Amino acid sequence: MIIKSLLTKENPFNSTEDIRRWIQQRNQEVTVDVEQIPFSEMKMWHSETDGSIHHDTGRFFSIVGIDVKTDYGLNNHWRQPIINQPEVGYLGILTKIIDGVLYCLMQAKIEPGNVNCVQISPTLQATKSNYSRVHSGKSPNYLEYFVNAKPENIILDQLQSEQGARFLRKRNRNIIIKVDEDVPVLEDFRWMTLGQIKELMCEDNMVNMDTRTVLSGLKISDYVTPLDGLNGMSEFGRGLILSSISNHNYISTRDHLSWLTALKAKYDLWVSHCPIKEMPGWVKTDSEISRPDGKYFKIIGVNVTISNREVASWCQPLVQPMQQGLCAFIIKKIDGVYHFLLQAKLECGNFDVMELAPTVQSLTDKVYGNDKPEFYDYVLNARPEQVVVDAIQSEEGGRFYHEQNRNLIIEADDDFPLELPPRYTWMTLRQIYKFLRFNNYLNIQARSLISALNYK
Amino acid sequence: MIIKSLLTKENPFNSTEDIRRWIQQRNQEVTVDVEQIPFSEMKMWHSETDGSIHHDTGRFFSIVGIDVKTDYGLNNHWRQPIINQPEVGYLGILTKIIDGVLYCLMQAKIEPGNVNCVQISPTLQATKSNYSRVHSGKSPNYLEYFVNAKPENIILDQLQSEQGARFLRKRNRNIIIKVDEDVPVLEDFRWMTLGQIKELMCEDNMVNMDTRTVLSGLKISDYVTPLDGLNGMSEFGRGLILSSISNHNYISTRDHLSWLTALKAKYDLWVSHCPIKEMPGWVKTDSEISRPDGKYFKIIGVNVTISNREVASWCQPLVQPMQQGLCAFIIKKIDGVYHFLLQAKLECGNFDVMELAPTVQSLTDKVYGNDKPEFYDYVLNARPEQVVVDAIQSEEGGRFYHEQNRNLIIEADDDFPLELPPRYTWMTLRQIYKFLRFNNYLNIQARSLISALNYK
Repeated sequence: MIIKSLLTKENPFNSTEDIRRWIQQRNQEVTVDVEQIPFSEMKMWHSETDGSIHHDTGRFFSIVGIDVKTDYGLNNHWRQPIINQPEVGYLGILTKIIDGVLYCLMQAKIEPGNVNCVQISPTLQATKSNYSRVHSGKSPNYLEYFVNAKPENIILDQLQSEQGARFLRKRNRNIIIKVDEDVPVLEDFRWMTLGQIKELMCEDNMVNMDTRTVLSGLKISDYVTPLDGLNGMSEFGRGLILSSISNHNYISTRDHLSWLTALKAKYDLWVSHCPIKEMPGWVKTDSEISRPDGKYFKIIGVNVTISNREVASWCQPLVQPMQQGLCAFIIKKIDGVYHFLLQAKLECGNFDVMELAPTVQSLTDKVYGNDKPEFYDYVLNARPEQVVVDAIQSEEGGRFYHEQNRNLIIEADDDFPLELPPRYTWMTLRQIYKFLRFNNYLNIQARSLISALNYK
Repeated sequence: MIIKSLLTKENPFNSTEDIRRWIQQRNQEVTVDVEQIPFSEMKMWHSETDGSIHHDTGRFFSIVGIDVKTDYGLNNHWRQPIINQPEVGYLGILTKIIDGVLYCLMQAKIEPGNVNCVQISPTLQATKSNYSRVHSGKSPNYLEYFVNAKPENIILDQLQSEQGARFLRKRNRNIIIKVDEDVPVLEDFRWMTLGQIKELMCEDNMVNMDTRTVLSGLKISDYVTPLDGLNGMSEFGRGLILSSISNHNYISTRDHLSWLTALKAKYDLWVSHCPIKEMPGWVKTDSEISRPDGKYFKIIGVNVTISNREVASWCQPLVQPMQQGLCAFIIKKIDGVYHFLLQAKLECGNFDVMELAPTVQSLTDKVYGNDKPEFYDYVLNARPEQVVVDAIQSEEGGRFYHEQNRNLIIEADDDFPLELPPRYTWMTLRQIYKFLRFNNYLNIQARSLISALNYK
């Protein structure tokens, strides 16, 4: 049913074109006004004497300063602001089999930081503060289906990390459930096949990060039997299936574990809290925490007003990047099986020191002199026929303001070297999924790219 | 070779009786004098104004205060001292195949906290401070073999956690390497088979915790081919092999992952630093950090003098427990396959909130009224024929003073219920090893018990 869903782009309920129009229409109907305001004017938020910014309830998230010491990389000691949200939220997709095909109940969700207001989002996106009703508002839609799901109705249930450079050890519960009963389809919700969602992922900023991370955990080959399902697939799709079932790999999982253990043992990461006011290179003014050199990102305070059938308004801090990012995988057939080139990357907010990241994860502006990240030129200079995926994708609009990354998957030329620098390795999809089902191995950028793989 | 090593207790180099005598002899030759002294008299150590205790170099470990908030259990907010050692150390065993049998190069190692001075220890036990020579002493014996091991010579290489109630997020690199060349056998080192080490683990305080955690990662069934190796084994040993290769399980790994994800999402754990001097229930005097109610453990300062051929002397803090502990697994054949009863347990120093722990992990003294831990009475009242393992084992003597746990493995009666309380689950050995090879799933107490499983 999942494989059928992947290959099915004919949807009797909503054609892909319907969905596209629906999102456009929702974008037109809705006015999202994000006005930058001084921190002191953010209702329900306050700054403490050390400069950190907190919600008055003490819940949701806060902006705090951290002091980072590490022996990884060139910069071994710095301070920076970071989002602190030490709670596990739900990112949940409700699915149902209708006429033998799996459909996902997706939401057209408005987030203040989205470049376009509305993106395709999971059924449920709720922080613990949301679902334990700090708002004392109503409970999130469909929450009860997730809370009451029986083990046999849970397709996937994983704790996965958020952006390690922006979130301090943040994780969310990525969950997909299957219901048997009829489910009311509320306004702003639509049934879609996996094939449709993957199709829409080829478009810029259409499918939000939360959808991408949840779907990344779905190992397609678990749902393919050797005798069926592959017929409707492209040669590339069949190549991906082979990569996710083949025992043949260039580097064994035992060697991967040892390689990662050695790197985690080699590099120390010490993170402690520090006052926002005592961060060299950073300045906090009335209305932003930013760097005079214009690098990296800044923290702003905003007043959000959403006008639709009703008007909603609230204040919150957002993280605004200073430039676009790049997340790229190089893939290569080794002995006939697709291998992905991953790096072990240390980021200050990582839960477990180093996570597996895409081949290239960096900024895209020309900030690099002779010190470009490995494989940076290779992926940006790829010929059109090498490009498997190329789309601009948004980070989560509830925390990030207009943050976008170019997502690229590039198929390497035959003469691309198999020998890699020390922090880099080759993995088949089978190996990637072996790590992915355990916590905190694949970072969110890698997962976003994995979710974009189209088996059609 | 590993399986042969497991089953081999005939060792042409050292019989088990030789090894026993050697350890006894080393214990007689050595005098370890551990004298409790005021903290202020500990050379190379100092207390800071908040009461925390640090090495003058800033390396090794420190004793700090933490403030713990959680919604798990009955006590939801407390403060306590904890060992802070944010470095990954080596616990390494060097092995070599001699005449088709794998031998481990084990050390008779003196630790100040051991109830008996000398225990059987890994080839290498080194903190990062040790091996990066903060001492400016000589490099640890055999270190170079581990540092220079080639991937194909690494049998096992895992980051594993230490005691979550005593160490703040501490992990060590557990590594087993295989060398082909001749290795000089230094004084205090001997070749032993796995079978011998397992045999010696049946004796109280003979094999140290570091050895036990390293060996726990070795999945015996990886080294057994269906056609050989099982002949020399007991019915119980064959049962364990079946449990580690059978696809048949009472609860699927997908369900285990979902169960653990739900628990980790449900329970929050917030740990922050606090001054030692501001810990309700705890008092720091000149010579100890302890509780007037006599509970849990205390921190003492000691001067250690080891007299042997030469005299060595140093000062350090040690953690002294107030009572003996109990770590027990209940195992049960379900549909003919051994399953282990594990609990997901939150401890304040855990790297990942909750780890998989033995069925019972508790104190043994009669501190429990009507509030005994689940299955506590069952394991303590087991009939002799149900007892698979029963030995007193020491915690690491480099940090803990005379800390001992009774290690029990109990085979449940036929009428033992399969239905379990929410934090408990059944796993086959195959499933346990699936989690064990990834970081921070099995806690050190569970691993200690797993290592004691004897396939003979």
